[in-house]
Amino acid sequence: MKILITGINGFVAQHLLAFLATLPEAFTILGIGRSEPAFDNSQFAPLKIEYAKIDLLNREHVGEILQNFKPQYLLHLASISSVGHSWKNPNDSFVNNTNIFLNLVDQIRLLDIPCRILSIGSSEEYGNVNPSQLPLTEESPLNPISPYAVARVSQEMISKIYADGYGMDIIMTRSFNHIGPGQKNVFVISSFAKQLVQIANDPSASKMVTTGDLSIIRDFVDVRDVVKAYYLLLQHGKKGEVYNICSGTGVSLQQIMDKMCAFLNINITLQQDSNLIRPNDNKAIIGRADKIKKDLGWYPEISLDKSLTDIINWWKQQGS
Amino acid sequence: MKILITGINGFVAQHLLAFLATLPEAFTILGIGRSEPAFDNSQFAPLKIEYAKIDLLNREHVGEILQNFKPQYLLHLASISSVGHSWKNPNDSFVNNTNIFLNLVDQIRLLDIPCRILSIGSSEEYGNVNPSQLPLTEESPLNPISPYAVARVSQEMISKIYADGYGMDIIMTRSFNHIGPGQKNVFVISSFAKQLVQIANDPSASKMVTTGDLSIIRDFVDVRDVVKAYYLLLQHGKKGEVYNICSGTGVSLQQIMDKMCAFLNINITLQQDSNLIRPNDNKAIIGRADKIKKDLGWYPEISLDKSLTDIINWWKQQGS
Repeated sequence: MKILITGINGFVAQHLLAFLATLPEAFTILGIGRSEPAFDNSQFAPLKIEYAKIDLLNREHVGEILQNFKPQYLLHLASISSVGHSWKNPNDSFVNNTNIFLNLVDQIRLLDIPCRILSIGSSEEYGNVNPSQLPLTEESPLNPISPYAVARVSQEMISKIYADGYGMDIIMTRSFNHIGPGQKNVFVISSFAKQLVQIANDPSASKMVTTGDLSIIRDFVDVRDVVKAYYLLLQHGKKGEVYNICSGTGVSLQQIMDKMCAFLNINITLQQDSNLIRPNDNKAIIGRADKIKKDLGWYPEISLDKSLTDIINWWKQQGS
Repeated sequence: MKILITGINGFVAQHLLAFLATLPEAFTILGIGRSEPAFDNSQFAPLKIEYAKIDLLNREHVGEILQNFKPQYLLHLASISSVGHSWKNPNDSFVNNTNIFLNLVDQIRLLDIPCRILSIGSSEEYGNVNPSQLPLTEESPLNPISPYAVARVSQEMISKIYADGYGMDIIMTRSFNHIGPGQKNVFVISSFAKQLVQIANDPSASKMVTTGDLSIIRDFVDVRDVVKAYYLLLQHGKKGEVYNICSGTGVSLQQIMDKMCAFLNINITLQQDSNLIRPNDNKAIIGRADKIKKDLGWYPEISLDKSLTDIINWWKQQGS
């Protein structure tokens, strides 16, 4: 199974490689990143992973890579997936989500490479959601309200055009907020965990934690469940279809904070920072995963408590 | 009134300049094109038109132009607006619609220039329309089914983010198929007219006209009415709102062909070319212009018969 994986240095790709390494199948993997490999291949033995450093905005380089490797599968994980970043750098967010994907699929079209493509989207695509519409199914309307969400909706529309108009083999996801050990602390849960672990480690430290709006409700799913879904979709997903990948349960950031404080057995003081409150943020996003359950038998296996414990333990290891 | 007009060499811009030249207001116009000016300024006297040749994909150049000119109004007409072209060059179509617009609005944001922006969209955004949904209002769902349409929906989503999220003064249109003298013959009505005029001019010529699917129904609006709508929207449109610009009447390509043959008093033979039939083309697109009529008092003044006669006469002049 020849797989091209973009965003190979990222959080999701690293968990994907760890998962693939547990499978009996033989994989030939070409990983693409914007920087030098940030990991040691040996940790993913017996996987064979080749590596290419290219800018996915460079059409010519993308074409060469595809022509030489001729992937059977493309798992496109490269993305600048932070909503906060997208408000600060909307143009870069758009280009590094939508345009990099467009370059990839268009080169595959031009080179006529038979390749099954997984296009990763986001629950942010649903955007401004009326509470009466929850939980969100794949049929729910898309009302993106951040530059990142617009980029993801654009990518999904492009995927549909390439699937329906050019007959390409593309499957799409709307992946809800994934969490897990190793995630950068620009993402909220990882940021909370890092701060709380620091407080737990140093009894003399300030107990003040700065946050945005803690009433926000999201549907969190463990990255290790997400990568299993991606692998199943690559193998058995239906061409041209969109799949929610979610837990089906909404949890507020306050609940997550409370759980992590309880795990660490600490008390904290919360301070709201208005700079961390985004324009037009969605109050609640909760999905339904019935479609992927029905079509592929996928469901999340890792509980929220296990995710949070593992994230906390990961930050503890980073500090030591 | 300082107006920056992109796509200055294009069909719509040329009609816009002709219209502005008839008004009593004083205009300072900077026109941006990708190539050297394709027209003689004197024909638009008393308008003062400066010209800059730049690639709108070049962020730095776009920033410099905006910083130097500091437009009060931006009328963004630059576009590769052919659906057929977009199927052949989807990546170029996307970049030269969505990304050029994104570069412009993002530079205006970064430079904090107080500027009212008109973002031009297309009826193609409605895409796959159920006949029961006709005529289309601004509330109708968007189901784009061509690369061009996807690019325009992406542009509109970006406009909404910059208006709602960053508070910028942007108004959007969904402009239906515009026709009029001077349109390139990559567009269907102009292509028909050119072929029919050739037949009328040369009695010995073949009477065969090659077409795509003539049962397709579109809502045609004269470009001279469209540019009046753009000017009104720049002055009085409501920030963050989308406006249909259309006639409200659906006409089949067959009807247009019959009318033009009658005006020219010729009989022809039709031959369908499957290469001219696009994947997933919309069968019927008809709009409702109630919103722009209500908000701005705009309605189309030029009849379809006058448009077609003027287009025919324009092609007659080109041949002579």
